[in-house]
Amino acid sequence: MKNNCVFCAIAAGEIPSFKVYEDDEFLAYLDINPFSEGHILVIPKEHYENLLDVDEEVLKKLIVRVKKIARRATTALDADGFNILQNNGEAAGQTVKHIHFHIVPRKNGERLVFENTSGDMEKLKALAERLKF
Amino acid sequence: MKNNCVFCAIAAGEIPSFKVYEDDEFLAYLDINPFSEGHILVIPKEHYENLLDVDEEVLKKLIVRVKKIARRATTALDADGFNILQNNGEAAGQTVKHIHFHIVPRKNGERLVFENTSGDMEKLKALAERLKF
Repeated sequence: MKNNCVFCAIAAGEIPSFKVYEDDEFLAYLDINPFSEGHILVIPKEHYENLLDVDEEVLKKLIVRVKKIARRATTALDADGFNILQNNGEAAGQTVKHIHFHIVPRKNGERLVFENTSGDMEKLKALAERLKF
Repeated sequence: MKNNCVFCAIAAGEIPSFKVYEDDEFLAYLDINPFSEGHILVIPKEHYENLLDVDEEVLKKLIVRVKKIARRATTALDADGFNILQNNGEAAGQTVKHIHFHIVPRKNGERLVFENTSGDMEKLKALAERLKF
């Protein structure tokens, strides 16, 4: 666990989150500033800064979790598609320096430019219940 | 190989591409309508439509290739960061129905909205030479 890392604190349960998936090594929760309804972040609990930094075995397990959670989320939300986004470095819009994959469910005809919106906490709570494994 | 799949045809060498990496199972080449300089696509040669469709063992190997190629590209281009983007379904902007990961190198201060630009073929050719493994 890295000091002052928000995602390490979420993984440790010190900061609350709207969890949708958890196992010993990985955690997925709703982005509270979602690009779209059902925008999920998937992280390893162990701290790695980015894609270049992450252990390969952890990365392999992580992408399999991303696939699994994307299937669950898009089915539960009846989404028409989804984007996987993973940002590395401030130049690429990485705000939290703990590797994370974004799952962004999409609907036909909705234009999206990957901009944060202000999430409604009550709605997010209900949504997490729907998406939870 | 799937009929009428452009990326299968690229993988088979029937359509030319600006290759930067190739092994028995995977291929990486420059996007000819790049979001940024050095925008690369990484694909399995075998046809899978999207993340939900791809074999898990192939996916694990694919993400390790993505990591390796991203390191190479960002180092060679002296990029400050990079995005990984992977689109699933037309609703998410997937235009070619053969799974691919985008590697999008980024520079500090450059705003980017993931929009295609018209690539200069001569520049792309020279760039592929620089990035090639």
